[in-house]
Amino acid sequence: MKKTILFALASIMLMGCGNQCNKECQTMKQQAVIENILTRVSVRQFTGEKISDEQIKTLLQCAMAAPSAINKQPWAFIVVNDEAILAQLGQEFPYSRCDQKPAIAIVPCGDLQKAIPGMEGFWINDVSAATENILLAAHAMGLGAVWTGVHPNMERVAAAQRVLNLPEHILPLCIIPVGVPAEQPDVKDKWVESNIHYNQW
Amino acid sequence: MKKTILFALASIMLMGCGNQCNKECQTMKQQAVIENILTRVSVRQFTGEKISDEQIKTLLQCAMAAPSAINKQPWAFIVVNDEAILAQLGQEFPYSRCDQKPAIAIVPCGDLQKAIPGMEGFWINDVSAATENILLAAHAMGLGAVWTGVHPNMERVAAAQRVLNLPEHILPLCIIPVGVPAEQPDVKDKWVESNIHYNQW
Repeated sequence: MKKTILFALASIMLMGCGNQCNKECQTMKQQAVIENILTRVSVRQFTGEKISDEQIKTLLQCAMAAPSAINKQPWAFIVVNDEAILAQLGQEFPYSRCDQKPAIAIVPCGDLQKAIPGMEGFWINDVSAATENILLAAHAMGLGAVWTGVHPNMERVAAAQRVLNLPEHILPLCIIPVGVPAEQPDVKDKWVESNIHYNQW
Repeated sequence: MKKTILFALASIMLMGCGNQCNKECQTMKQQAVIENILTRVSVRQFTGEKISDEQIKTLLQCAMAAPSAINKQPWAFIVVNDEAILAQLGQEFPYSRCDQKPAIAIVPCGDLQKAIPGMEGFWINDVSAATENILLAAHAMGLGAVWTGVHPNMERVAAAQRVLNLPEHILPLCIIPVGVPAEQPDVKDKWVESNIHYNQW
């Protein structure tokens, strides 16, 4: 009972809402975000459990919150939850792990009709940012996911367009299986100091 | 005093460390991550205040934690803190806002010598994911930043290579000014339901 009250009080004090979040609360939020980025792993095996519509919506909200060049938002997202189509993706793209019991797959695409005229290529950057947001949000929600590459391999692009019945101006960037993790891969330490240069090469 | 003790207790109970984080704590962390993604904005004016080496290191750690195709990590990061070079970037790339008093600029680059032989183009996806991690981490830390595009505009690529003395195999993806925000842009709601398709187009 005392513990419950303490939790309630602590929640109010630490997290607050909006402007109510004090310095301790801000530090905790900051740590949560950084930790989530640093501990994200690629998950390739899933339990087959379903995930909720609300969870899927959150993933897509995070995707569409990504920045895009001159705010063109040149993207579309295919959510695959049909078992037959997941199986087909798994067969066409074995490395996509769509045959490893994900709940869904999300296929972030570029929409060339929404891209910057004459600078269409920026869609790749934009849709990549949206993809990273999906991966980070999934990890925060306790879900597993992995970025499996399609574009710029144009054979893969054509195959995904065929399976998903995409028009020519819709270019799939990658396939992201998402589900309840059936494995807990170790976090990779990818810090390499020699990747950093100051001011000039 | 009581408040201090309550904070200490609450911190231990709510955040814990590693496995100690209970369900309430997990929910809070999840909310912090999602909120950070949804509230990130592009900041283009800065106060001129310095940021610490520790903050810069955290941004770069987050960048290198990004996923990359077959884990090639085909990237390099130029940290520009020299005022003359910032001024030069500001002049060559007015939209980069390097003349708006950022503390530093980070230039995430692709390293073609580390890219996948025959599938070099995947570096764009990888370095874009690293860039998004930098933006999200900066926002969580209370810093401002904005993704200003360079690649695939090859004139801009050549100009940035010249200013930063980059070898030919190092391709700058974008320029990210980072600093203490001197503006608080409104969060954009970019949710567009018609961007979502189920199973097939």
